[in-house]
Amino acid sequence: MSKAPQEKDRNPRIAITMGDPCGVGPEVVAKALAQASRRQICTPLILGDVNVLSRTVEILGLGLSVVAAGEEVGEVEPGALPVLPLSNFPPGMGPREIPREEGARASFSYIERAGRMALEGKVKAIVTAPVSKGAIHRAGIAFRGHTEYLAEISGVKEFVMMLAGEQLKVALATTHLPLRAVADCLREEKILSVIEITSRGLKDYFGLKHPRIAVAALNPHAGEGGLFGEEERIIARAVRRACAKGLSASGPWPADSLFPHAQRGKSDVVVCMYHDQGLIPLKLLHFDTAVNITLGLPFIRTSVDHGVAYDIAGKGIASSRSMEEAIRLAAEIAKRRSHLVSQ
Amino acid sequence: MSKAPQEKDRNPRIAITMGDPCGVGPEVVAKALAQASRRQICTPLILGDVNVLSRTVEILGLGLSVVAAGEEVGEVEPGALPVLPLSNFPPGMGPREIPREEGARASFSYIERAGRMALEGKVKAIVTAPVSKGAIHRAGIAFRGHTEYLAEISGVKEFVMMLAGEQLKVALATTHLPLRAVADCLREEKILSVIEITSRGLKDYFGLKHPRIAVAALNPHAGEGGLFGEEERIIARAVRRACAKGLSASGPWPADSLFPHAQRGKSDVVVCMYHDQGLIPLKLLHFDTAVNITLGLPFIRTSVDHGVAYDIAGKGIASSRSMEEAIRLAAEIAKRRSHLVSQ
Repeated sequence: MSKAPQEKDRNPRIAITMGDPCGVGPEVVAKALAQASRRQICTPLILGDVNVLSRTVEILGLGLSVVAAGEEVGEVEPGALPVLPLSNFPPGMGPREIPREEGARASFSYIERAGRMALEGKVKAIVTAPVSKGAIHRAGIAFRGHTEYLAEISGVKEFVMMLAGEQLKVALATTHLPLRAVADCLREEKILSVIEITSRGLKDYFGLKHPRIAVAALNPHAGEGGLFGEEERIIARAVRRACAKGLSASGPWPADSLFPHAQRGKSDVVVCMYHDQGLIPLKLLHFDTAVNITLGLPFIRTSVDHGVAYDIAGKGIASSRSMEEAIRLAAEIAKRRSHLVSQ
Repeated sequence: MSKAPQEKDRNPRIAITMGDPCGVGPEVVAKALAQASRRQICTPLILGDVNVLSRTVEILGLGLSVVAAGEEVGEVEPGALPVLPLSNFPPGMGPREIPREEGARASFSYIERAGRMALEGKVKAIVTAPVSKGAIHRAGIAFRGHTEYLAEISGVKEFVMMLAGEQLKVALATTHLPLRAVADCLREEKILSVIEITSRGLKDYFGLKHPRIAVAALNPHAGEGGLFGEEERIIARAVRRACAKGLSASGPWPADSLFPHAQRGKSDVVVCMYHDQGLIPLKLLHFDTAVNITLGLPFIRTSVDHGVAYDIAGKGIASSRSMEEAIRLAAEIAKRRSHLVSQ
């Protein structure tokens, strides 16, 4: 008998939520896990629906067998996709046949269980496929987003949504807010905390020793000396306090000229004041390869950077590149951390 | 004697403002006009300062002679830069020696005269170098930006700031506003007018027969069905009205996923709701080659897409590519329009 591998050398167990069954989630999860390279770096468990995934795998001709599994399942044979069944849609039902509300409710149950398993230490990381916040909301569940929900169940007040691509990383000071609410939500303490969590995240997760953090301004031309807004003063105070704590932070920089510099490597991450400020440049540079990472949680969580894309669900044309990257990154971070822990 | 060239074949007369003498304006104007290719497509007249430009040309070793000229000056000999003198800083004074307020006041006087000459038909187009809105403001002149000022003196209420690069064009529904003020400034009528002016501009200025206009949403995920804001309804109504008028408009689209599509040619222009929404992707794709164009004025006006860059003024390292493009585009549009007029 071979010796049991050391914890630090074993592939990390990762929970992967299937996402909204009416969207592209099942497709991108199946496609990503069909690649041998993904299976070699982690021990995946999909939280989702056996019938939905079986149909997906069959239609896409991926040559995999979907098997029901329990929470404790370990490695399964190559070619098998282990699924913890949390919903049970009728066999053969495609994304267009499943009622949106039922799909949304099921998609929420996958996230719920993934969060619980991570908190209980049953998995090292969770990777999430897309859900529709609007649909979950309409199904009667108060839900502002994966990131916010996972922070809440972890009892974490300070967390950061970061998106990472090869050329650009962005961390968000506010996330899913109406644009009109952003300015009033910017607090010096909050921005400072985002800078700190981001710096720590880049150290722990990406192995950077002294992460260089560029902070974006809120207003056009960074407010042009107060002519177009005053919030830059709040941001400037937060940056000064971060520097006083020994962090390498700078800003606030005019957002329009900042990103080309960040792309050229002048900083390791850009802290952005609102969702689209960060997501617009990120998606322009990394259309389908960026990964969403939540920093500040007690567990590792990555996600695709795209939505449910109801319009192309079931057509077999969704790109699984962001899901592949999300799994790769979760596995990589989990390995780096288990090495740190066992050292 | 050779026959006088027809109006439509003559190089268009273009007024070029020198910009803030404490910034990179004089440098980028001189560098751009030092290129023979720029001089072959237009008859330029710089509105600025003879001493400042003489010093700039000498330090950069451009081999040009700066000559004082009147409003009516025509072609000058190759190698000469005709300047209408509107300020008179002492010879030898560099961008760091000129007091900021005096520089700002002078920079405003160049714009003033350029606007007047254009309105009087003395030039076909004006091209503007960067000024500092903040500095002009501190010099006691109420000034919100070139675009807004030129619209005001033209008696034009409806105008559009457009920025154009090879891969992306953006038109702004609001311009130099604090971010917190944007949502309340979005009116259905205003957005409709921006779509109409933009469509007309792309026809007249760029020769497109049926410009395809994508309109960006204001809120993250286009408001996700009202969960993150309501302004998408206003935008949607404006888009519907534009379509009813026979224009090819679509949206509101989530801003973060819209730009990669626009870049790939799915639309000819993106109408953006606020400054940074358009400028972030534009500058990421076209760092120093984008041109600012004002649509809706009674004359052609283009501009660089960058600021005064006080920090690098006088160092000889400013890129003149945006100025070169601004002059090229102004000349090209002027020629297209004079052909249309004379046909």
